[in-house]
Amino acid sequence: MIYAGIIGSTGYAGAEIARLLAGHKDVEIKWLVSKSFTGQAYEDIYRNFFEIIEKECTDIDLADMAKTVDIIFTATPQGYLQGKLTKEILDDCRIIDMSADYRIKDVSVYEKWYGMEHHSPELLSEAVYGLTEINRDKIKDTRLLANPGCFTTCSILTAYPLMKEHMIEKDSLVINALSGVSGAGRGAKVANLFCEVNESAKAYGVTTHRHTPEIEEQLGYAYGENVTLQFTPHLVPMHRGILATETAKLKGSYSYDEIKAVYDKYYSGEKFIRVLKKDMCPETRFVEGSNYVDVNFKTDERTGNIILMGALDNLEKGAASQAVQNFNVMFGFPEDEGLDMIPMVP
Amino acid sequence: MIYAGIIGSTGYAGAEIARLLAGHKDVEIKWLVSKSFTGQAYEDIYRNFFEIIEKECTDIDLADMAKTVDIIFTATPQGYLQGKLTKEILDDCRIIDMSADYRIKDVSVYEKWYGMEHHSPELLSEAVYGLTEINRDKIKDTRLLANPGCFTTCSILTAYPLMKEHMIEKDSLVINALSGVSGAGRGAKVANLFCEVNESAKAYGVTTHRHTPEIEEQLGYAYGENVTLQFTPHLVPMHRGILATETAKLKGSYSYDEIKAVYDKYYSGEKFIRVLKKDMCPETRFVEGSNYVDVNFKTDERTGNIILMGALDNLEKGAASQAVQNFNVMFGFPEDEGLDMIPMVP
Amino acid sequence: MIYAGIIGSTGYAGAEIARLLAGHKDVEIKWLVSKSFTGQAYEDIYRNFFEIIEKECTDIDLADMAKTVDIIFTATPQGYLQGKLTKEILDDCRIIDMSADYRIKDVSVYEKWYGMEHHSPELLSEAVYGLTEINRDKIKDTRLLANPGCFTTCSILTAYPLMKEHMIEKDSLVINALSGVSGAGRGAKVANLFCEVNESAKAYGVTTHRHTPEIEEQLGYAYGENVTLQFTPHLVPMHRGILATETAKLKGSYSYDEIKAVYDKYYSGEKFIRVLKKDMCPETRFVEGSNYVDVNFKTDERTGNIILMGALDNLEKGAASQAVQNFNVMFGFPEDEGLDMIPMVP
Amino acid sequence: MIYAGIIGSTGYAGAEIARLLAGHKDVEIKWLVSKSFTGQAYEDIYRNFFEIIEKECTDIDLADMAKTVDIIFTATPQGYLQGKLTKEILDDCRIIDMSADYRIKDVSVYEKWYGMEHHSPELLSEAVYGLTEINRDKIKDTRLLANPGCFTTCSILTAYPLMKEHMIEKDSLVINALSGVSGAGRGAKVANLFCEVNESAKAYGVTTHRHTPEIEEQLGYAYGENVTLQFTPHLVPMHRGILATETAKLKGSYSYDEIKAVYDKYYSGEKFIRVLKKDMCPETRFVEGSNYVDVNFKTDERTGNIILMGALDNLEKGAASQAVQNFNVMFGFPEDEGLDMIPMVP
Repeated sequence: MIYAGIIGSTGYAGAEIARLLAGHKDVEIKWLVSKSFTGQAYEDIYRNFFEIIEKECTDIDLADMAKTVDIIFTATPQGYLQGKLTKEILDDCRIIDMSADYRIKDVSVYEKWYGMEHHSPELLSEAVYGLTEINRDKIKDTRLLANPGCFTTCSILTAYPLMKEHMIEKDSLVINALSGVSGAGRGAKVANLFCEVNESAKAYGVTTHRHTPEIEEQLGYAYGENVTLQFTPHLVPMHRGILATETAKLKGSYSYDEIKAVYDKYYSGEKFIRVLKKDMCPETRFVEGSNYVDVNFKTDERTGNIILMGALDNLEKGAASQAVQNFNVMFGFPEDEGLDMIPMVP
Repeated sequence: MIYAGIIGSTGYAGAEIARLLAGHKDVEIKWLVSKSFTGQAYEDIYRNFFEIIEKECTDIDLADMAKTVDIIFTATPQGYLQGKLTKEILDDCRIIDMSADYRIKDVSVYEKWYGMEHHSPELLSEAVYGLTEINRDKIKDTRLLANPGCFTTCSILTAYPLMKEHMIEKDSLVINALSGVSGAGRGAKVANLFCEVNESAKAYGVTTHRHTPEIEEQLGYAYGENVTLQFTPHLVPMHRGILATETAKLKGSYSYDEIKAVYDKYYSGEKFIRVLKKDMCPETRFVEGSNYVDVNFKTDERTGNIILMGALDNLEKGAASQAVQNFNVMFGFPEDEGLDMIPMVP
Repeated sequence: MIYAGIIGSTGYAGAEIARLLAGHKDVEIKWLVSKSFTGQAYEDIYRNFFEIIEKECTDIDLADMAKTVDIIFTATPQGYLQGKLTKEILDDCRIIDMSADYRIKDVSVYEKWYGMEHHSPELLSEAVYGLTEINRDKIKDTRLLANPGCFTTCSILTAYPLMKEHMIEKDSLVINALSGVSGAGRGAKVANLFCEVNESAKAYGVTTHRHTPEIEEQLGYAYGENVTLQFTPHLVPMHRGILATETAKLKGSYSYDEIKAVYDKYYSGEKFIRVLKKDMCPETRFVEGSNYVDVNFKTDERTGNIILMGALDNLEKGAASQAVQNFNVMFGFPEDEGLDMIPMVP
Repeated sequence: MIYAGIIGSTGYAGAEIARLLAGHKDVEIKWLVSKSFTGQAYEDIYRNFFEIIEKECTDIDLADMAKTVDIIFTATPQGYLQGKLTKEILDDCRIIDMSADYRIKDVSVYEKWYGMEHHSPELLSEAVYGLTEINRDKIKDTRLLANPGCFTTCSILTAYPLMKEHMIEKDSLVINALSGVSGAGRGAKVANLFCEVNESAKAYGVTTHRHTPEIEEQLGYAYGENVTLQFTPHLVPMHRGILATETAKLKGSYSYDEIKAVYDKYYSGEKFIRVLKKDMCPETRFVEGSNYVDVNFKTDERTGNIILMGALDNLEKGAASQAVQNFNVMFGFPEDEGLDMIPMVP
C-alpha cells in the first residue's frame, strides 16, 4: 500500500486527485492538507465524498508530512513548492507537483513569466516534466515530477508528432484554446461567479499567458530547436474541458494518409491518446471525466495550412488523472490503474 | 461471464447502461440494439466510446436475442416490451426493463395513464419493481425486473421511512421535483434544443405526469393503504439530476432525533442512500455520475409541515446504475459491483 | 427632467436600474453610488455601459444626495436604509428601496426574520409596499416605497386573485419557487461560483427564508385574515428568472372558466400580468428581460388541489423594472414609460 | 408608416426581427410567414410575444406579398430567395435578405461553397452587401440588401481598419471564432439538443465553412487585392454571441497609439462599433441583446503578430438588428431608430 498526502486538497484539482486516489486500489490517502479548511471534515467541503472520504483537513508541514508518506501531490499555487522544497524532503518522499514551479528548465524564463523569484533552482535539473506519453522513461525514476498544465498538455500532444517530424514550420503555430471554468480554481473571485461567466465567451491573457513558454519549451525539445508560437486562451461557459485549435503552415504537401501515419507512429500504442477518424473534430464532452486526449487534424489546400485539434478534460488529463498516470509509472503500477473511467455523456 | 444485450442502446439511458456494463468485470456486452442506427459503429454515435466499445449497432429481434444472452436491458419507449414479451422469452433470458410497462400492477391504471393497451398483463404478476433497497429479496429471483423511473426512485426513497412508520398524513404529500434535460431523451424535438431549454425553468405534465401513479402505488405499499398525492415535475437547465422537494403534514410533533432515527432505521445499512447531516440540503451535483441518493428533511413548527428532500442522478440511480444494481442482485454479484463511481464535482 | 441617484449601483439590481433609467426619456442619472468602486468609471465595471453611461462611481452620503435629486433608488443590503433614513431626508427626496427594510409593517416580525434591530420604525407607517398592480393608488403619493422581493412578487401575484376571492384554503399554500443565480447578488462567494452552481439544483433557506413573512403578510391582506404558508426556494443554474409553483386546496369545485374569470377580474386590465391560455405553463424564458409576469393554473380533481404557476424575471419585475414602474406611478408618468422591453428569446 | 413582411418568421433570426420591428415606431408588421406553422398564432410559438404580437402565421407567396408591403425581410434558408426573386418583385418592394444568396458577387464562388445553382445571378449586381458602417452610402438606395452573416460581420469589422491601411500581411489572417448555439437555428436536430451541446466545445466546418469566402471577399475589397485566410468556427454552450480572435502578421512595428489611431479613424464616429480601452478583451455578454460590436487588439513583440478581437450578438448585429439598421438607412430613418437596446448583464 502506498501512502499519499495531498496539499491543496480543497481546490478543484486537489479534490479530483483525492477522488481518483480514493478509487485506486494500491493507495491510501493519509493527509488532506488545506490551510483554509483545517479542522473541517473533508466531506463537508465536498459533499460528494460524504461517507466516502471521512477525514479531516489538516495543516501539516511539507517536511513533516514527507516523513510519513510515499508520495505527496501538491495542488498548490505557483511559488509554494519552490519556496519550501529541499533535497532532504525529496530524500524522504517523492513529489508530484501540479504547479509550474519545476516545469520550466530555464529559471530566468520562469521568473520572467511568473514574476517571482525561484528559491530552489538547484532542484530543477532533477525535475521531470510529466507528459507521460513523451517522457515515460524519465518519469519512472524521478523523485520530483512537474505535472504539466492543462492548456499545455492539450497543446503539446496535439502538435507533437508533426513537430517531431518537422512537417510544419516551427514558428508558424497559432494556438487558440478554449477552457472550462474549473481551470480558474475555487477562489472566491467576482470574475468566476456564475453570473459573470455563464452565457459569455472571452479571450484572456492575450500574448502573456504563462502556459506559453511551457508549450514552447516542450515543442522545442520535439523539434530540436527553439520554437516561438502564438497562444491565445479563451474562457467558455462549461465546467471542464480544454479544446485546442492549432493552425500551422505545412512544410510540404502531405496526404491525409501520410499525416495520419505520423500520428499513428507516436500514438497508436497509447491508450489515452485517441487519434479520431477522418473528419471528426474532437469535442470536450467525449473525454469528460476521463484521462483521454482526443486529437485530429485537417489540411487546407487553399491556404497551405493544417489545422490541428485536441480535446481533454482539464481536471483529468490536464491535471489530476495525468498526475495519477505519472504516479503509476513512478511506482511501477500498470499505467492505467485507477484510471479506467469511460467518458460520461451527457 | 454474463452475456448481455441492450435494446435501445443509443438513447441516453441505454448508453449509460453500456458504459456501466463496459466497466463491469463480470459482463460482456453482446448486442447493442438500435433501430435508427443499425449497421453503424456504436463509437461513431457516442464518441466517448471510441476505441472502448467497438461494436456495431444491430436490430436483432427480442426473442432471438434472448436465446443468446443471460440478461437483456430494454431502454425502450413505453409499450415496446409489453407488446413483445412472452413467457417463452423469459424462459430463455432474464429482462431488466427501463420502461413503465411492468411497473404498475393494476393494468387499468397503466392503460389510463399511458393511454395504450397492455398486451401482456399475464406477466405483471411475476414482474418485480426494482427499487433495490426496498425489494431486494424479491429482486433476487425474478426473471422480469421493472426498473423504476427517475422521479419515482427519488420521490419514493425520500419519503419511504416516514410513510412506512405512519409519521406523515398519507394524502398530504406535495411533491415538487426538478429534472435535468437528459430525462427527456435523445429524440430530435424542438422542445429539447439547447436554445429552448437553456436559461429557463418550467413546470410540465402538471396533474398528469405518468410517474404519479407509480409513486402512489409504491408509497401505498409502504403505508399499507392507498395514497393520493400531488406530483409536479419541472424542467431545469442541466444535463443530469432529479431533486425532489416533498412537503407533508406531520402526524405529530417529532424532534429531529426521532425523525433521523427513522431514516437510520431503514437506511443506515444502505451504501447508496445517504442521509445527510442536519440542515444540509441535497444538491444534485453531489450525486452526479453515481448511484447515490442523498436525502434529508427539515420540520417547520410554524406550519406543522415537514419538508423532505432527495437528490439523485436521473441517468444513474434513476435509470442505468439502479438497473446494474438490480442486475447484481439478480445474478448474485456484490450489489455495488461496477458501481464504485464517486460523484464527480464539478 | 427627474434627477435620480442609485445607491448600490454596482450590484446586479442596481445596475439593472441604471440600465432602465438610462433608457427612460424623463430621467437623468446624477449619482451612481458604490462604496467598493468609488472613483472608478462605471463603464469599467459593467462594460455593457461602455460609451453609454460615462460616469464615475461616488460615495456621497444619503442625506447629501437627497438634496440634489428627486428620487433615490437604494439597491443596498438589508439594514442599510433603515439605519440611515430620517423624515428630514424624505422631506428632500423620495426613495424607492429595493431591500426589505420597510416591507414588513410589524417591526418585531422584521427583527425576528432578519435578525437585526430596526432603527427607524417610525417611518414604517408611511412606507408603501410597491406591488404596483395591487397598491397603485397608495404608491402615487408615497415618499417611501418598499419595492417587493423577487420571490415575493411572483408568489403573491400568482395567488392573489384566489386568495382575495377566498377560493382556496388560506393556510394550505405550499409554494415551491425556483430562482436564477443573479438573485444571490454579485458578492465574491464560493457558493456562487460558476463551478459550484452550474449543472446543479438545490433547495435552500428551507423553513427560514426571509421572503416568507412578506408573502404571508401581503396574502393576508388579500384574504383579510392572517395567512400561514410553506415557502421553499430553490437555486437552479440560470442567470435570471423566478418560477413559483403553488399548490393549494380548493375550497370548492370550480370549473376552469370560473377560475379564469377570477384571474381576469383582477388582471385583464393589467398590461404586465399575463394570464396564459389554458394548459400553458409559464416559463421564465418568455418573460426574461421584461416587466411581465406570466401566471396560470391547473386544477386536479383527483386531489382537490389547484396548482398555481407564475414566472417573472427576478432582476426586472422582481426588482428593477418594478421599481421603475413604481417610479412612473409616483411621478405621474405613463406606467410603462421606459418599460417597453419585449422578452428576448432565446 | 412602413409596412413589413417577414418570411421565415419562426426561426430565431426571424423572430428577433419581429421583436425589433414590434418596437420600431415607424413600422407595422403585416405578414409573419411560416410554412411549418401556417394558421397558428405567432404568440403560441414564441410565447414571449403573448398579448404583444397578435397575428397568425401565414404562407403568402413572395410576389403577392411584395404588392402589399414596403419591405420584406427574408430569414430563409440558402437558396430560397435566389430561386424566387425577380426584377418584377423588386419593382414592387424592397428586400432585406438574411441568407447568403446575394452576398457573394462571383456566382461561381457561391455555387462552389453552397453547392447549389444560383437562379437569379442577374440580380447580383444590384444587391448591396449590408455591412452598414462600410457600405452606408450604397445601402441608402438599394432595393436588394444582402445582410451579412454573423461570423462575417464580426470577423470583418474586427480586421477592417488594419486591412484597409495595409498594416497586416494580407494572407496571414488566422480567424478562430466562437459561436453560441442560436446560430444553428431552430430545426429539430439531435446535434443541437441541450444534452449534445451543453458543457462541451468543438470546432466544426474546419476549412469548409461557408462564411470563409464572404469574409475573404469583403476584406479583399478593403485591402484592394484578393485575400486568402484561415477561418475556423467553434460551437460553445451559450445562446448568443460571436467572438472572433484573429491573429495576423504585422507588416511593421507599430505602437499601441498608432494602431488605435487607425481604429479610431474608421470607427470613432460609429455608435455601434466600440473600440475598447487598452488591454480590455471583448466579451460576448457585454454586447448581448444589442446592436454593438466591441473590438480591440493586442500586439505581441515576441512573435510579430497582432491579435484582433471582436464580439457581437449573432442574432442582433450578426443578423436582426443589423437588418433593422440597414432598413433605417434604406428608408431614411435615424440609423439607430428602434435599436436603443443597452446590452443586458447578466
